[in-house]
Amino acid sequence: MSAHSKLYEGKAKIIYSTEEPEILLADFKDDATAFNAQKRGNITGKGIINCIISCKLFQQLESLGIKTHYIDSPKPNQMRVKAVKIVPIEIVVRNIAAGSLCQQTGLPLGTELKQPLVEFYYKNDQLGDPLLTRDRIRLLELATPEQVDEITHLALQINNFLIDFFQRCGITLVDFKLEFGLDSQQQILLADEISPDTCRLWDISAANDPDRRVLDKDRFRRDMGNVENAYQEVLNRVLKAVENNN
Amino acid sequence: MSAHSKLYEGKAKIIYSTEEPEILLADFKDDATAFNAQKRGNITGKGIINCIISCKLFQQLESLGIKTHYIDSPKPNQMRVKAVKIVPIEIVVRNIAAGSLCQQTGLPLGTELKQPLVEFYYKNDQLGDPLLTRDRIRLLELATPEQVDEITHLALQINNFLIDFFQRCGITLVDFKLEFGLDSQQQILLADEISPDTCRLWDISAANDPDRRVLDKDRFRRDMGNVENAYQEVLNRVLKAVENNN
Ligand SMILES: Nc1ncnc2c1ncn2[C@@H]1O[C@H](COP(=O)(O)OP(=O)(O)OP(=O)(O)O)[C@@H](O)[C@H]1O
Ligand SMILES: Nc1ncnc2c1ncn2[C@@H]1O[C@H](COP(=O)(O)OP(=O)(O)OP(=O)(O)O)[C@@H](O)[C@H]1O
Ligand SMILES: [Mg+2]
Ligand SMILES: [Mg+2]
Repeated sequence: MSAHSKLYEGKAKIIYSTEEPEILLADFKDDATAFNAQKRGNITGKGIINCIISCKLFQQLESLGIKTHYIDSPKPNQMRVKAVKIVPIEIVVRNIAAGSLCQQTGLPLGTELKQPLVEFYYKNDQLGDPLLTRDRIRLLELATPEQVDEITHLALQINNFLIDFFQRCGITLVDFKLEFGLDSQQQILLADEISPDTCRLWDISAANDPDRRVLDKDRFRRDMGNVENAYQEVLNRVLKAVENNN
Repeated sequence: MSAHSKLYEGKAKIIYSTEEPEILLADFKDDATAFNAQKRGNITGKGIINCIISCKLFQQLESLGIKTHYIDSPKPNQMRVKAVKIVPIEIVVRNIAAGSLCQQTGLPLGTELKQPLVEFYYKNDQLGDPLLTRDRIRLLELATPEQVDEITHLALQINNFLIDFFQRCGITLVDFKLEFGLDSQQQILLADEISPDTCRLWDISAANDPDRRVLDKDRFRRDMGNVENAYQEVLNRVLKAVENNN
């Protein structure tokens, strides 16, 4: 693995090519952004923490038969992944109302949803990642209706696993964002990352304290302090839960 | 029809009660608002024009078997209507990309859609009338999935009629907004109005002139001038088309 060249630098990761054309290297950074990169900062240790958490979760999902881009982790903040063509849709699964769902519907923060809500947002920073309907996905030809159905099915399966996994960590999974991609055989793989950057995670032991319970990027977004501690706490609990599983 | 009391004053109409509890009187005003009432003004003659156009279109739709709230028109700017419980969803049917669809998808203004797009927006001024998905409609219990299906079917039927009707007026129907309501028997009726306030209408004879072609409220929204003339022109053509039909 030499002679990597930088293919893309995103807000949270740098993507490098490798000698093998179908394999990429994702290098997780400590950089943090919010509100479509209007807010910028740094969370010490985040790159390593998010990479380890993502690797562990992808491994668990693979063992359940869900196909992901994960290959292995050559360094604590690096993940080798199968190269995919990212479907330009951010899939958000919600179990409890928070964030833009509250803003756009008036539902109070913390409302438990009777059933998980799978939502689609246009992965387009210029447009501000707007909500998509299935009809708009078809109109913009972002994915076929069959792909949307398959992605929805996978997202709900992943939600079922993650709810249960985080429950064992003493954490309530409020919502999370996924990205899927197509490999060279047009197979849909789970890609990107699953981490405190991309999930809302509430500490069950502080369930009624709207400040203390937050163990995710909302601490950064909303200037709540103790950001590093929260990320570290999630990592510790994830590692323990994985150990107990084996 | 005496002793009317004002039940509700909206941005474009005042709703009065009548002696009959199942009948309301809608009084169309010259007041104009845009961008969720941040912009306010007055379009002389609009109340009468929008009322007459709406009455004519509702009559035509009724003759095609589509149930509307329309009863009759006691004065040029007044419509007697069946009282309904308005479904708090604005149904927008689009044939050509314009307005928020362009802003939220990046589609260029004027893009012809391969098939009509039926969209739902939350009728909630406080929240700024945000886009709804079917799942959010169900979550917020704004309508049942069966009602959404029926409304979608009606909206497409109405679109088919209106495209053809306006074509005969020398006008391209770009998009329009509908409101539906439930009568005392839980029947779905087309309510509110269909007018240059609620449609985007482009003059076919000026199709390639993005300024001159606009015959609707966009002239007011975008300070394009000649607002009254445009509304009057639509009325004249609608009346002629109705005459030719009889
Ligand atoms: N397996 C993969 N193959 C190809 N690209 C991937 C893969 N997994 C993730 N990516 C992409 O890598 C990019 C870098 O990730 P990062 O999270 O830093 O981006 P971002 O700034 O959040 O998002 P954006 O894509 O809007 O730039 C993202 O565009 C992501 O979609
Ligand atoms: N048949 C009907 N029965 C009861 N209400 C109706 C009927 N038709 C229309 N309405 C309602 O009458 C109200 C007044 O109309 P108007 O267009 O002025 O309201 P608006 O200011 O545009 O909208 P809003 O409803 O947000 O106030 C609207 O709320 C509309 O939904
Ligand atoms: Mg990202
Ligand atoms: Mg109105």
